[in-house]
Amino acid sequence: MNDSEEALFCNDAFYQAFLSRDISAMNNTWAKNAALLCIHPGGQALTGREDVITSWQNIIAHNTCPRIMHKVDQITLYEGMVLITCYEWDERQPDHFLLATNGFVREEGRYRMVFHQAGPTPIGPVETDTEVEKPVH
Amino acid sequence: MNDSEEALFCNDAFYQAFLSRDISAMNNTWAKNAALLCIHPGGQALTGREDVITSWQNIIAHNTCPRIMHKVDQITLYEGMVLITCYEWDERQPDHFLLATNGFVREEGRYRMVFHQAGPTPIGPVETDTEVEKPVH
Repeated sequence: MNDSEEALFCNDAFYQAFLSRDISAMNNTWAKNAALLCIHPGGQALTGREDVITSWQNIIAHNTCPRIMHKVDQITLYEGMVLITCYEWDERQPDHFLLATNGFVREEGRYRMVFHQAGPTPIGPVETDTEVEKPVH
Repeated sequence: MNDSEEALFCNDAFYQAFLSRDISAMNNTWAKNAALLCIHPGGQALTGREDVITSWQNIIAHNTCPRIMHKVDQITLYEGMVLITCYEWDERQPDHFLLATNGFVREEGRYRMVFHQAGPTPIGPVETDTEVEKPVH
C-alpha cells in the first residue's frame, strides 16, 4: 500500500469504530505517542490523549450517538503527515453535513490518527472521484 | 528560533496579511510547492494553490472583509508539520468566535502555511498561556 492507501485504512477504521461504537477500536486508531489535536463541531481544541479519547468515549457511550456516514473528499500528502477531508452526516439526518479533516502520522510502522476537526457545511458531497493531491516534493 | 517560534512567525504573518488586506503578503505566507488545503467556515475543501489564493483574494478584496483578531490557543508539533489553533473574531463582532487550525511545513528553509480550517465555536478564548504540546518523539 502507498501512503494514501495506508492513511485511508486508518481513516476507515476510525469511522468503523465510530459507527460500531467500539471505544477500544477508536482508541486504537489514535496515535499512542504523537501529540493529538481534536476539535469536535463547536468544541474547544482537545490535546492531551486522555482528553481526546474521553471525548470520543462520551460521544460513543451516549444514547444519542449519531450513526455517522462518511465520504472521502480530498487527500493531501506531506512529508510525515497525511490529511484526509471527509463529508460526514448522521444516517438519521441525511441533509445535515459536516466537513472533517483527519490527520495521520506513521507510528510503529503504520498510520494512526493525530488530528480531527469537523465543522458544519451547507452542501454535501458531490459525486466525483476522490482527488489525491501531489506530495510535498 | 525553534519550530514553534518559526511556525508562529508565519502564523502571525498570515493574520497580519489578513488584517492589512495585503494579498501579496497573504500569498507569501502559503507554501509554493507543497499541497495546500483550505476550508473556510461553511465552505468546501480547496486544494489547488490558485483556488486557495483566489479565495483569500476574494475575501480580502470584498468591502465587507472582516477585521480578524486572533489569539493563539494550542501548538502541536509533528515531524515535518506544526499545527497551531487560534481563536478568531471580527473586531466589529467581538462576541462571535471561530476556532481555526493552521498547518505549517518547512519549505526553502522557513515555515509556510499549507492548511487552514476554521469553524464556529460558541466560546471565546480563556485567559491562559499558550500551551505547547510535546513533539512526536
